[in-house]
Amino acid sequence: MTIGLDMMGGDYAPMEAVKGVKYWLSGNDKPVNLLLIGDEPAIQKLLTEHDVPSDHITIVHAEEIIDMHEHPTKALREKQNSSIAIGFHLLASGKMDAFISAGNTGAMLVGTLFSIKALEGVIRPTISTIIPKENGGTGLLLDVGLNADCKPEQLNQFAIMGSVYAQLVLGIEKPKVGLINVGEEEGKGNLLAQATYPLLKENKHIHFIGNIEGRDVLMDKADVMVCEGFTGNIILKLAESLYEIGQRKKIDDEYFDRFNFEIYGGTPVLGVAKPVIIGHGISGAKAFMNMIKLSQLMLEKDVMQKMKEELA
Amino acid sequence: MTIGLDMMGGDYAPMEAVKGVKYWLSGNDKPVNLLLIGDEPAIQKLLTEHDVPSDHITIVHAEEIIDMHEHPTKALREKQNSSIAIGFHLLASGKMDAFISAGNTGAMLVGTLFSIKALEGVIRPTISTIIPKENGGTGLLLDVGLNADCKPEQLNQFAIMGSVYAQLVLGIEKPKVGLINVGEEEGKGNLLAQATYPLLKENKHIHFIGNIEGRDVLMDKADVMVCEGFTGNIILKLAESLYEIGQRKKIDDEYFDRFNFEIYGGTPVLGVAKPVIIGHGISGAKAFMNMIKLSQLMLEKDVMQKMKEELA
Repeated sequence: MTIGLDMMGGDYAPMEAVKGVKYWLSGNDKPVNLLLIGDEPAIQKLLTEHDVPSDHITIVHAEEIIDMHEHPTKALREKQNSSIAIGFHLLASGKMDAFISAGNTGAMLVGTLFSIKALEGVIRPTISTIIPKENGGTGLLLDVGLNADCKPEQLNQFAIMGSVYAQLVLGIEKPKVGLINVGEEEGKGNLLAQATYPLLKENKHIHFIGNIEGRDVLMDKADVMVCEGFTGNIILKLAESLYEIGQRKKIDDEYFDRFNFEIYGGTPVLGVAKPVIIGHGISGAKAFMNMIKLSQLMLEKDVMQKMKEELA
Repeated sequence: MTIGLDMMGGDYAPMEAVKGVKYWLSGNDKPVNLLLIGDEPAIQKLLTEHDVPSDHITIVHAEEIIDMHEHPTKALREKQNSSIAIGFHLLASGKMDAFISAGNTGAMLVGTLFSIKALEGVIRPTISTIIPKENGGTGLLLDVGLNADCKPEQLNQFAIMGSVYAQLVLGIEKPKVGLINVGEEEGKGNLLAQATYPLLKENKHIHFIGNIEGRDVLMDKADVMVCEGFTGNIILKLAESLYEIGQRKKIDDEYFDRFNFEIYGGTPVLGVAKPVIIGHGISGAKAFMNMIKLSQLMLEKDVMQKMKEELA
């Protein structure tokens, strides 16, 4: 198993990425190889300085870096020697099994969509977010922005992919799926929600519990919460702002602390053949460690294969 | 000026409505008449018990009550002698100038749409909510559920109606209008947001500041925040749940207290010829008082006429 890590992505690269690798190595006893992609001399220097053991580690030199604010498609095309472009090349050619970056989100998405195959039958891949539940549990919301306009069939696929992820990665045995909507009863909602409801209801691969409203998002009602990427993105960013408000208002509460999305490490693109994990720009060492752990877990549990089976 | 109040709507009717009337009377010195609609003996008894002065007050007897959980259209058709049906009859026939109820929300909406004329050119009326801003200010979000699917032209009208309301009722001199979206730049978003942006940009009746994201909703960025009723409803109900979570977690913070939407009294239907105010089911005396004040203010400032002019 080989996992690739973009060492140049994120605000604190490559330092925090190196520290993340060190943390992960100290807790890992499985035969996993890491490819560290980026500026070789800089990475080598930091690895030595931080006494990072060199077994299982290979540095892959990348001349260029795609900046956080570059235009994704243009940057990927013009910077073939960037750590992100090289990462996707290695992933697509089978030299590694998963790819992680806290760099330019757009470039990571474009790279995934264009170089990694979608799972058979998947209309469009999706990205999700963890939602901290008031009772201490953890939910999954998807899509959160990759697909601003969706067809009912897409939401139905999100429900399946989200359920597999919730089961294998979040450890929820029988994830309850809820359709985000403006009312509880079947028949409520916009045209999309109205057309999606019957699909979810008849879907044998999921445990559909019906519509959930805005007030249920933070509650225990559903584990997997499905909507188009427009609404999902608004919810995600509103939730992120709650953490910042809580910090500024010095609200000392364990629950609100969980809205610090940095700690989750990153979000995987779901619906593609291999794990691609996109990290927050401000990822620190712990986030990098968690992203390596997440891709390792996704590979070990064979999440992609399970999704493929459930989608068939 | 005559304002009608449904005395039988809400969980604490008619008691809290009577107390609300009393509070309002003690602070009001303008020549406004109130029509109190509901069970006459019960209302009369409470007015006497609470020493409510009888000048400017007329009780209009209503035999029936539309229950909170009745089907709106069916109930309005079958209960012609209910306080809500009588209220709309009096409003439509010009016997009163505004109508307030904390009763069945659906029946209030259906009653408004079917018995009160929309302002000329308005595609569909809308409902809004107050959004407490972190800096202490107050924003307006619309639509919050009356129009789950919208055309760009509707969002453009929401922007105008919201701006007039923000100006005349919330006292914001030059309200900044933001389009709720998944990214900052023009061209971002779903098909609706993409098509709405140029309309708002060219609209001379509003002060458009561009797209705002989920993270900006609680910030000072825009005063009037425009979206279709699906996303708006999810935001509203998520915000309502924050107050409840804050209460349960005993978070003692002035800002989070402002997410207690009961205190705002109610929301007006915008885009119709006369003020109709819909209150929260759990409205207390203060909410009733605030709803009478709000309809009085809307009539004094001639909000409907101003909207008509701006929409022309």
